[in-house]
Amino acid sequence: MKWEVQLYSWGVAACGQGETIAQDRAKLAMNGAESLIRTLLGGGVETCFANPGTSEVHIVAALDRIPQMRCVLGLFEGVATGAADGYARMAEKPACTLLHLGPGLGNGLANLHNASRARVPIINLVGQHASDHLCYDTPLTSDIEAIARPYSDWLRTSSSSSEVGRDAVAAIVAARTAPGQIATLIVPADAAWTVGGSVAPLPPLPKPTLPDAHRVEHAAAMLQSGARTALLITGNALYGQGLLAAGRIAAATGAKLLAPYPITRLERGAGVPSVERTQYVLEPAIEQYREFRQLILVGTQPPVAYFAYPGKSSVFTQPDCEIYTLAEPGEDYVAALEVLATALLAHGECSATKNPSRPPLPTGAITLPGLAAAVGAVLPENTIVVDESMTSGRGLMAETRGAPRHDWLCNTGGSIGIALPLAVGAAVACPDRRVLCLTADGSAMYTLQALWTMAREGLNITTVVFANRDYAVLKREFSYLGVGSPGPSATAMFEIGRPDLSWTQLAKGMGVPGIRVNSLDAFGKALQAGLEGEGPTLIEVPL
Amino acid sequence: MKWEVQLYSWGVAACGQGETIAQDRAKLAMNGAESLIRTLLGGGVETCFANPGTSEVHIVAALDRIPQMRCVLGLFEGVATGAADGYARMAEKPACTLLHLGPGLGNGLANLHNASRARVPIINLVGQHASDHLCYDTPLTSDIEAIARPYSDWLRTSSSSSEVGRDAVAAIVAARTAPGQIATLIVPADAAWTVGGSVAPLPPLPKPTLPDAHRVEHAAAMLQSGARTALLITGNALYGQGLLAAGRIAAATGAKLLAPYPITRLERGAGVPSVERTQYVLEPAIEQYREFRQLILVGTQPPVAYFAYPGKSSVFTQPDCEIYTLAEPGEDYVAALEVLATALLAHGECSATKNPSRPPLPTGAITLPGLAAAVGAVLPENTIVVDESMTSGRGLMAETRGAPRHDWLCNTGGSIGIALPLAVGAAVACPDRRVLCLTADGSAMYTLQALWTMAREGLNITTVVFANRDYAVLKREFSYLGVGSPGPSATAMFEIGRPDLSWTQLAKGMGVPGIRVNSLDAFGKALQAGLEGEGPTLIEVPL
Repeated sequence: MKWEVQLYSWGVAACGQGETIAQDRAKLAMNGAESLIRTLLGGGVETCFANPGTSEVHIVAALDRIPQMRCVLGLFEGVATGAADGYARMAEKPACTLLHLGPGLGNGLANLHNASRARVPIINLVGQHASDHLCYDTPLTSDIEAIARPYSDWLRTSSSSSEVGRDAVAAIVAARTAPGQIATLIVPADAAWTVGGSVAPLPPLPKPTLPDAHRVEHAAAMLQSGARTALLITGNALYGQGLLAAGRIAAATGAKLLAPYPITRLERGAGVPSVERTQYVLEPAIEQYREFRQLILVGTQPPVAYFAYPGKSSVFTQPDCEIYTLAEPGEDYVAALEVLATALLAHGECSATKNPSRPPLPTGAITLPGLAAAVGAVLPENTIVVDESMTSGRGLMAETRGAPRHDWLCNTGGSIGIALPLAVGAAVACPDRRVLCLTADGSAMYTLQALWTMAREGLNITTVVFANRDYAVLKREFSYLGVGSPGPSATAMFEIGRPDLSWTQLAKGMGVPGIRVNSLDAFGKALQAGLEGEGPTLIEVPL
Repeated sequence: MKWEVQLYSWGVAACGQGETIAQDRAKLAMNGAESLIRTLLGGGVETCFANPGTSEVHIVAALDRIPQMRCVLGLFEGVATGAADGYARMAEKPACTLLHLGPGLGNGLANLHNASRARVPIINLVGQHASDHLCYDTPLTSDIEAIARPYSDWLRTSSSSSEVGRDAVAAIVAARTAPGQIATLIVPADAAWTVGGSVAPLPPLPKPTLPDAHRVEHAAAMLQSGARTALLITGNALYGQGLLAAGRIAAATGAKLLAPYPITRLERGAGVPSVERTQYVLEPAIEQYREFRQLILVGTQPPVAYFAYPGKSSVFTQPDCEIYTLAEPGEDYVAALEVLATALLAHGECSATKNPSRPPLPTGAITLPGLAAAVGAVLPENTIVVDESMTSGRGLMAETRGAPRHDWLCNTGGSIGIALPLAVGAAVACPDRRVLCLTADGSAMYTLQALWTMAREGLNITTVVFANRDYAVLKREFSYLGVGSPGPSATAMFEIGRPDLSWTQLAKGMGVPGIRVNSLDAFGKALQAGLEGEGPTLIEVPL
């Protein structure tokens, strides 16, 4: 029986060569929790970002018996969900989270919002009271499915221990359905603790479909028409093979490659086809798109503003711009671009700068352009850059364009407070790479607990906090909306100084060495030291 | 016209005596945001715990023009919702929160869960994209109503600026419906910015109904039957007139007064009728209820365990205990107890200790009993104690029983991370009282951003962090469930040391002076200093 073979192999994997058949037989009496963890491992889910509670203790006990699953504790659930996002972006497969009932899931929602917009695979495991305890409506009872639904592409509550393994497999399949989905499995305590669980084998994963041939033909005709054309690309077409194909298309046709403002993962730097990020601010974004008569979409929607403004259009493209979808979200972007490149006979070189060209390491007083130049001057090859630098980081991408090859991850859903957790997940996924986490101070405060996880796990993350002591984007919006100058109440809600946050103290309080720098020289030095040293560091940059 | 009078009076209130009629006429052209804030003020909602974003900028602008609404910024939304809970418990009326779209609301959900169990009034104001921007499904778009529904007793999205005032009134009425409800009003940006708003007058608020006379008669008969009886009381019957009536009943009949484990607000200390809190742990709770043949419920459900355990009952009462509901949740508890006291001719004295009797200030090495005694020795009259001390605080209530009169607020929903925000809200509601915030380290980490709000607002809060560097309750549950000793993975998820959090550093990082104490002497001294000094302080107690 296939089921028994699967189970046996996991028994060996879990307990080593010396295990007796009697011990192995004992596993036939595994509980639901153990079947859950073993099934997840069988499906390639090897990391659990956790913040469990009492209702998840049997799952913790199962994790304790099955050391193959790496458990990473976060002291707040938004750390766990944001880390699962960062892990998925870099590992290209799901981690699981382990969350405590409805409120624990609630704390994780904001970064699940971002993850849903990143279209990454995540499997949330959420505990639930034992079935016959729910009727008492005890203090921690809530409608977990209702809390999960807004950000779950797949959602199920296990009905019994014998179903948990099968449900876990369904969750894996759902999460790994392209382009990546959020699957939430709610596990009642009795389904976890009751014997009768079984490991479910993983069926073949669904493959993304190739767009229809006529779409490739139409896109090719657009690119050959002579009209000024851009490709707006997302997902896994922004790195690796997909980006190379896009680069060949750009080189052969003169088309421009654009990415949305919310970038899930962008490979960039020397030798990599150049992609321009869409602007955040309305007017510059409209300027950016003004020249294009044609826009080809790969896995994304037409570009629009984050927010509406009275009397202004939200749309970036000109009214006469033809917008055409080459690949819908969830289709095979990489194959679509490769087929398109072939159709265009775009076999040549990518239009990429070959050799790194960095700005010189700047000196003197701290300025935003200087900080951007310092990052560009120092950035090591293969770094993963996590960028939630907000208004302080507008110049960063220009100054790092010529740096050695690296990846760039951004906030995808606009819910600030993802940078630190995202960095945790990326570092866990890629232990051999360096992570540079660039964050605004206001953003970092939402999930500062992630610093502790960095310290506990000894992750090679250098966090730079741009401390302008403002929700500067709100100040800007306030004046942009023409509602006058901020008075005392508005100022009190836009300025996060009084008292000033000390990021070095906050970092030290969580076990991360921190330094405050007051010149570009000091910043460059601290950045270099952070990116070369072991474990996490934090650099506070007062602005 | 009543409406105009209402508007005029607010105009005067907002702008002072010198205002001209022309200026007042201009207010007739107020936008939806302004009508929202003025209507809330008219309904007695005078405090806004806020963490706004771009979609709420017009509401911020309205707050800026209307300084009567006190705005308190939190750097994380769980601070805002938890503070609104603490405010409502002490002010006995709602504050509003101001939250940014679905993710901002998501971050506030865990403490809304607690608030929903505390049955307090809260009005959430949540921004939404402008109506004609929603179709673009931009990054911050989400189903806000779906996110709000699990913890909203009342929920509405304003359809236009002209409806905002009326919707705000409906929200106030819903929130102030006994025993207190959570009302969530979603305000699209265009409803906020468009002219045409009008201040809506507040209708009479619904009054809680008195329980049927036969229920009072039945309860009286039970209390006169001679069978051992307890009253399990909640809500506003745990302080003030309601508690005095309950105390008279207890004195006259020998009945015991019990509170649920999750206490919203309990008045206690010298001169106050004594109420025993229900135990948290299953077996002691069953022991506590064993003697009672009759249990009379006032605004609460029969007592049960937070969590289920394999093969164990969740119910605390004995099978032969008659459980009778005197007052359902939302009925008039105070009147019910007063009528019952009258029916029992219980006009006499309460069974309360008259004179304070404190333990002596302990000295020597830190122990949990010693810490509890120190709190009992020092606690000033009229202090508001916020207690989320978890396993470290089991002895606190016994040692403070004889202290001068004070209020005691607890976590009501079991979602840890409420203590610091709750303390903020209580301190804002009662600027003339001292707040003692007792928190476990694990709990405090969820919403540590509240420390910054304490510092900014200069709140008289003394926070004690019991730093056992554990999720101790989970360790206990693990052994209680008989799943063996925690191995490496379980230990890694239960112990929050490695690295140890430094609470003094974290506090200083947010502008709150902090001290670590290593003896009971030092603790007593720091406690006294904190409770006598101005502004917030933090005391870290390593355990």
